[in-house]
Amino acid sequence: MWLIRGGTARGPWPQVKVHAATSIGPQYRRVKENPRLMRNIEKFIRDNVPRFEEVLCDFLRIPSVSADPRHREDMVRAAEWLRKYLEGIGLDAEVIRPPGSVPAGHPLVYAESEAVPGAPTILVYGHYDVQPADPLEEWSSPPFEPTRRDGYLVARGASDDKGQLLTHVFSTEAWLAVYGKLPVKLKFLFEGEEEIGSATLSAYLRQDPDRLACDCIVISDTAQFSPGQPAITYALRGIAYFQLELEGPKTDLHSGQYGGAVTNPANALVMMLGALVDERGRVAIPGFYEAVRPISEEERQMLGLLPFDEDVFFERLGVDGGSGEAGFTVLERLWVRPSFDISGLTAGYQGAGAKTIIPSRATAKFSFRLVPDQDPKKIALLAEEYLRKICPPGIRMKLALLAQCPALALSLRSPWVDAARRAIEAGFGCPPVFVRSGGSIPIINQLYQSLRAYVLLVGWGQESDNAHGPNERFSLADFHRGIRTSCHLWQELANVEVKDSE
Amino acid sequence: MWLIRGGTARGPWPQVKVHAATSIGPQYRRVKENPRLMRNIEKFIRDNVPRFEEVLCDFLRIPSVSADPRHREDMVRAAEWLRKYLEGIGLDAEVIRPPGSVPAGHPLVYAESEAVPGAPTILVYGHYDVQPADPLEEWSSPPFEPTRRDGYLVARGASDDKGQLLTHVFSTEAWLAVYGKLPVKLKFLFEGEEEIGSATLSAYLRQDPDRLACDCIVISDTAQFSPGQPAITYALRGIAYFQLELEGPKTDLHSGQYGGAVTNPANALVMMLGALVDERGRVAIPGFYEAVRPISEEERQMLGLLPFDEDVFFERLGVDGGSGEAGFTVLERLWVRPSFDISGLTAGYQGAGAKTIIPSRATAKFSFRLVPDQDPKKIALLAEEYLRKICPPGIRMKLALLAQCPALALSLRSPWVDAARRAIEAGFGCPPVFVRSGGSIPIINQLYQSLRAYVLLVGWGQESDNAHGPNERFSLADFHRGIRTSCHLWQELANVEVKDSE
Repeated sequence: MWLIRGGTARGPWPQVKVHAATSIGPQYRRVKENPRLMRNIEKFIRDNVPRFEEVLCDFLRIPSVSADPRHREDMVRAAEWLRKYLEGIGLDAEVIRPPGSVPAGHPLVYAESEAVPGAPTILVYGHYDVQPADPLEEWSSPPFEPTRRDGYLVARGASDDKGQLLTHVFSTEAWLAVYGKLPVKLKFLFEGEEEIGSATLSAYLRQDPDRLACDCIVISDTAQFSPGQPAITYALRGIAYFQLELEGPKTDLHSGQYGGAVTNPANALVMMLGALVDERGRVAIPGFYEAVRPISEEERQMLGLLPFDEDVFFERLGVDGGSGEAGFTVLERLWVRPSFDISGLTAGYQGAGAKTIIPSRATAKFSFRLVPDQDPKKIALLAEEYLRKICPPGIRMKLALLAQCPALALSLRSPWVDAARRAIEAGFGCPPVFVRSGGSIPIINQLYQSLRAYVLLVGWGQESDNAHGPNERFSLADFHRGIRTSCHLWQELANVEVKDSE
Repeated sequence: MWLIRGGTARGPWPQVKVHAATSIGPQYRRVKENPRLMRNIEKFIRDNVPRFEEVLCDFLRIPSVSADPRHREDMVRAAEWLRKYLEGIGLDAEVIRPPGSVPAGHPLVYAESEAVPGAPTILVYGHYDVQPADPLEEWSSPPFEPTRRDGYLVARGASDDKGQLLTHVFSTEAWLAVYGKLPVKLKFLFEGEEEIGSATLSAYLRQDPDRLACDCIVISDTAQFSPGQPAITYALRGIAYFQLELEGPKTDLHSGQYGGAVTNPANALVMMLGALVDERGRVAIPGFYEAVRPISEEERQMLGLLPFDEDVFFERLGVDGGSGEAGFTVLERLWVRPSFDISGLTAGYQGAGAKTIIPSRATAKFSFRLVPDQDPKKIALLAEEYLRKICPPGIRMKLALLAQCPALALSLRSPWVDAARRAIEAGFGCPPVFVRSGGSIPIINQLYQSLRAYVLLVGWGQESDNAHGPNERFSLADFHRGIRTSCHLWQELANVEVKDSE
């Protein structure tokens, strides 16, 4: 069930009448709300907002760039900063050093609250590492000196993910400060390698999954649908990323003396990659769509109701239109259907002017974004078989699968979702919409697979936060609403009956 | 007429019985040969061979690398060296400075002999500039210290083109030394920019074509068919060389968030370039073949008789086979049919590992090799029209024609060819075969167009001379045979009746 339950979506998007789903049973018990309970918490938040902002600024001043070895010590500082803060609000917290198998790894931070009998255990995942700040000259203020501007906090990591992860820390602080306890058991797991592949956490998950055992995973590292319109993300696409190398003659050849009879690896590359897509914009590999779930009428209708303007979308990207698989809307192409994209092409002469050669080799990097239930390894086999079949004589072909992860699709018929929906409505003043993401986050897949717990992707950021670019920012209003929502979330999640959940 | 006249081709190729053509009329008068005349010349050559080799070595020691500004003075030295030598053998010679319009140009060397009433005027073209010697570490002896090895002279420029151009200088020296005069009027034109585009000569040709007026142009800058098998080259392919730039979104985009709906410029590039060739290996642009002359049965038979082993050809290139236009042999694909080759591809991420982007732009360099009577400018229009038509939405396309020149095809029914054939038979001891070349030499086209004179492409080099690579070499036997042939050539060309020639 993923329609917004009874009511009218509010906000700067068209008034959309949505209907309560009839298929939801009483999978969770809704305890009677205690208005005073949340009122006290909210008062604490209001009183502490200036301090929360200062604490976030303090955190943002640590240049915890995981990709840059020069910031190794800053990574340790950021982890220690988190541990100390978590300890300070009353949790058991520790820094976990990366295992010997990940020598260049950065520490994990782990903390937990006391057990709450009968209530679920919630794992909060986030990451304290940030993207490099380059190009520095495009920042209007120093990336690690947080600056308030037009209601935003501008700094590297403000939205991705320091600002978002702290909302859950501050909500926990509020509960503990006001009531001395939490309605659920919380486990915090913060890593320092989300931007560089999560090797340490991945190793830790294989080594000690029991410690992280939980009923539901809460992650705020995604975006709202648009400003003022919060969202719950219920699906991510998977990926199979390849490098294709074609080798022809042992050296570059003169294109006059040899052109027309010698197979040119660059010609072969465009022919073979071109043959991966048919004239309807579909991937032409036999069997590629075999496991793809057809889009349901229900989902199609809901996506159609989202306030999404295709013209504005393309205009913002600087193009006059787009293209893709025939028979699907832009949002369907981005979220529900698999895609094929070339990320890099390399062959022959790339300098100025003309050089008349047949290059001896040509290389491409490309990926398929996958949807449920496509198996990336099976897709890799199909792709290799197809490419070998169309590879012309005179070419030696190498295909390497550089990265892969399956798609993630969560049922919206879940009490966890309903709890989150209510919390968001309380925190943001409007119900969330339910969205998918075209991207792939392998560590989320791994958490989901390892812990077998529901994953709630509730992000307070915006697509326009420029997460990996210059002048990254986080709306202070979203920051405050995120903290409030998180406070409500612990209460709402407490009402989910663990044994009855899926 | 391009069959070898009466006789049997000799050499390390299959014995091929060729028949005299019956269609040749008496377009030239064959003067009675004076055996003693050539005997004296040949004796002079034999007596002077050691000196000729030393003079060539002297010339090769000047590192006249036209592409490298550090060798500017060496270019002037090489030009002066030539002028002095030409003057020394009794010609009027001068160095012509590049015009102001070609500030980075290198000098021309021009020389001429006395007029010979009733005899044709022959322009000998060559170039004294050489390719850079890099990579130096792959040379087994210093590139500008000529070294004798196994019957070869190893040095940069030995074959391309210093050794070859000097054969005509030494033959002229022989005639003048033995008889004090030449049977034809000779004009020597040597440039220093053949390897970098011939800008100075091109400007000079536009400015002062009358001075270069001639009846026939002799050029030794091509190769024999194989060792021991001299050749006359009667056709060159033309070229139209393009750069195609496709621009999509204003920045690189995340391939997850945008993949499937945003037109990826790299996807568009492979689709568009892939669509330039059909499944039979033909260029798919409508009208591309409109002007292409079909191959005649006569030519097809002759090419089929050439001792060319396709397996050996591919094996030498390090590939297990080739591909090309269906219905044509390898030699036909290389020489008689147009071709399409991509020389460079650039898009997105080219480093190690995976980067999941939709690149904002993608670029290709590619060319069509053209055959008579394809017009490169018309081909460029057709290509642009076709590419614009298949360019998908969301892409801005730029197509630049970086270089172009039409094909050159000379009739073999020419007294000039017959004269050259006889001279080669006298100099090499076996008749030449007639070959085409898949390459394009724009300056030869321009000489042909400007001077409206027949072009005799009689090269003494070998494909295996490694002209642009390390350890360039020139067979001393070919050097000597080239000098002898050139001596005979002046005598044979003298017999061509200019007014009756085409």
